[in-house]
Amino acid sequence: MIQSCGKRFSAVGNDYRRDLMEKSIGIGLLGAGTVGGALVRRLIGESDAIALKTGLTFDVRKIGVSQLDRERAFEVTEGLLTDDPFEVVNDPTVDLVVEVMGGKDPAGDLILAALEAGKPVVSANKELIAARGPELIAAAERAGVPFLFEAAVGGGIPIIRPLSETLAGETLDRVLGIVNGTTNYILTQMEDGATYQSALEQATELGYAEADPTADVSGADAAAKAAILASLAFGTWVDIHDVYTEGIENITAVDMSFAAEFGFVVKLVAVCERTDAGVNARVHPAMIPREHPLASIRGATNAVFIEGVAIDSLLFAGPGAGGDPTATAVLGDVIDAARAMLAGAQVAPRIRFSPGDSVPFTDVQTRWYVRLQVDDRPGVLAKIAAGFGDENVSIRSVWQEGVDEEAALIVVTHLAPESAQRAALASLESIPEVIEVASVIRVLGGDR
Amino acid sequence: MIQSCGKRFSAVGNDYRRDLMEKSIGIGLLGAGTVGGALVRRLIGESDAIALKTGLTFDVRKIGVSQLDRERAFEVTEGLLTDDPFEVVNDPTVDLVVEVMGGKDPAGDLILAALEAGKPVVSANKELIAARGPELIAAAERAGVPFLFEAAVGGGIPIIRPLSETLAGETLDRVLGIVNGTTNYILTQMEDGATYQSALEQATELGYAEADPTADVSGADAAAKAAILASLAFGTWVDIHDVYTEGIENITAVDMSFAAEFGFVVKLVAVCERTDAGVNARVHPAMIPREHPLASIRGATNAVFIEGVAIDSLLFAGPGAGGDPTATAVLGDVIDAARAMLAGAQVAPRIRFSPGDSVPFTDVQTRWYVRLQVDDRPGVLAKIAAGFGDENVSIRSVWQEGVDEEAALIVVTHLAPESAQRAALASLESIPEVIEVASVIRVLGGDR
Repeated sequence: MIQSCGKRFSAVGNDYRRDLMEKSIGIGLLGAGTVGGALVRRLIGESDAIALKTGLTFDVRKIGVSQLDRERAFEVTEGLLTDDPFEVVNDPTVDLVVEVMGGKDPAGDLILAALEAGKPVVSANKELIAARGPELIAAAERAGVPFLFEAAVGGGIPIIRPLSETLAGETLDRVLGIVNGTTNYILTQMEDGATYQSALEQATELGYAEADPTADVSGADAAAKAAILASLAFGTWVDIHDVYTEGIENITAVDMSFAAEFGFVVKLVAVCERTDAGVNARVHPAMIPREHPLASIRGATNAVFIEGVAIDSLLFAGPGAGGDPTATAVLGDVIDAARAMLAGAQVAPRIRFSPGDSVPFTDVQTRWYVRLQVDDRPGVLAKIAAGFGDENVSIRSVWQEGVDEEAALIVVTHLAPESAQRAALASLESIPEVIEVASVIRVLGGDR
Repeated sequence: MIQSCGKRFSAVGNDYRRDLMEKSIGIGLLGAGTVGGALVRRLIGESDAIALKTGLTFDVRKIGVSQLDRERAFEVTEGLLTDDPFEVVNDPTVDLVVEVMGGKDPAGDLILAALEAGKPVVSANKELIAARGPELIAAAERAGVPFLFEAAVGGGIPIIRPLSETLAGETLDRVLGIVNGTTNYILTQMEDGATYQSALEQATELGYAEADPTADVSGADAAAKAAILASLAFGTWVDIHDVYTEGIENITAVDMSFAAEFGFVVKLVAVCERTDAGVNARVHPAMIPREHPLASIRGATNAVFIEGVAIDSLLFAGPGAGGDPTATAVLGDVIDAARAMLAGAQVAPRIRFSPGDSVPFTDVQTRWYVRLQVDDRPGVLAKIAAGFGDENVSIRSVWQEGVDEEAALIVVTHLAPESAQRAALASLESIPEVIEVASVIRVLGGDR
């Protein structure tokens, strides 16, 4: 059952290693934006402290920068900068490659080239890892060098290493994550009374949201992280295309206040679940009970809540983004990879994926909160109840508030397959008294 | 600056390693109590799941048990059991030793013997590590084999590995921990109105407290964990004898309710701090603001709150004790150590300690809450204020409640050296109107 142990440190031989020990470890950096800049400042400014604590010295040897990054003030010699990222990877003085350029291309090919040259790689690129994780991990395994990506999920929160190492022997059931600080900041502001628009504007002003906030508010950023979390937690690769993704664009102040009234808060949650049928990962806004540890995660803070058979539950919370915290996670990986290089190890892959069934989201059990605008006529509730009943969706509670002839009607269901919830919703739309399905938000907790 | 790299996997040669790959890894277990029993059940009952997830198979080869443990139902062959723990360490079929027997002796000598024989060791023994950590880590470094102890602090919460690996490049300022579930359970019950005695009885009934709860309620258990946390966080070994330790025995319902009135909760906290003067670790009850993330950690749950320059703050929370969660942490270490063995690595030490100054607690800045019983006569407040003022301790707030001629007087100070706070307190005792210093509780937050 034990995997075979290949050649050790294939491309970097013994002489090379001895050489490494006598001088510092050459770092090649791909990308010099917020994270890359913070990393370079740390590697240079804190080199003595790092050496004292770890026994390692690092030397930044080459930095691949875009024109934009080059224009920023950079406290390194101009000679280290290059526009050609392959020059960084191929530089013979570069022992270890750090990829913080983001995007799938050319980051993926650069990482493959580095691994194939026997150079350990540290990456913070969630998008790339969600898209090509198994391929990159396999390439690292073939080369016998570390490929680490602690910073790809949760920024400065240690979550990848705990999942893949400390919890390697644990049977995990569920991982819930608030893994996008921008949307959590917006939702927290809305919880405190702001509108979506004003909250988004504030997030942009504070630098939490990009000029184009689509990747954040649409849930796409969180979806990549959900795929990575689920894959590591369950040991079965979850394809990013299988991650159902819904953003926060349609969350209204009205729903926020109904949530509060019912004892819930609304969060954009990455939900990774394993059931007997298989694993599923998804991202959507969810009402979570106010007592749940994730409910108190406010502002741009991120958090991951892990449920397992033996450990019951674990909470990790901290800064999910930002140059400095993310650079801490990258630096931790750099130190770890350097230690492995010096140990002369054929690095055993810490992450293994076995074939497993992925459950389509439509088969997953969900609970819904549905807010309808209805004509307040006798019999309308009976028709709506029948719409759910016909699809075998049990109603947990109904709440009605009349305004003139129109009424806001809120239905919260019990757990039922997502497909049944959707079918019930579709049937409601054909009821003449239903003026509008104003909103649908899934509910976590309560039923389980 | 880079440490020299010794012989790889000294006592276990290449043939041995090749052999390992073809069969499973032999586990020798020292101690078979709650954690040991849970671990054996997992290694046997979940071997397929572990193999699938990690590619590793384990085989429990020898178990050193006390007479007490032998009497418990054990789902292993009688032939595996021995009363002589050295037989476990010396068994040639044992590749990796797990020490969950607890206590300093003979655990320390057993671990040294195992390491010297080139066998990786996983331990959950906070008491031993706090007492002999550097010696054991140095022995592991000499032997080039892993010595891992994730389970020694925080039970099932991954905290040792994040501190020593993920945060290896971070400058940490402060680590606050609720690291003893028994006392946190008792204090939470008291927060909800129970007396100390009834809360302790409940804790014993629920199995949170031992028959003799001294190690928990006196803070001794937490002190060992504080020493380990501080040492790893700051990279300077903190001697357990330098950890000021105060338990929860003197916390009263009266103080709990005053704390609540002022917006605080009382927790037994391990405080590890680094200032310009050096590092300090201590354990004492503390009032912490209700908004602080640690304030919401209730019941037997443990939590560690880490403050650093770049990462701002991180929170880790989860089950701090119990056989199953602790076995998860031990199992994670076992898998990690086995991976290192198979990688054929001369394991670079992940933990390095450099000389550093330890600050005596008396020099540390603290804030005090002092509750006094006084004769309610004019001028008494002036005398008390002078008592603090003479020692240069500023008073932040005073609160007085008269009962007949006696009054409860509560003073909360600003930050001042612990020695000044103590001197001020001593001076109060000589004021004739001061009937009794009813209690002293340190206050965290507010001033910083």
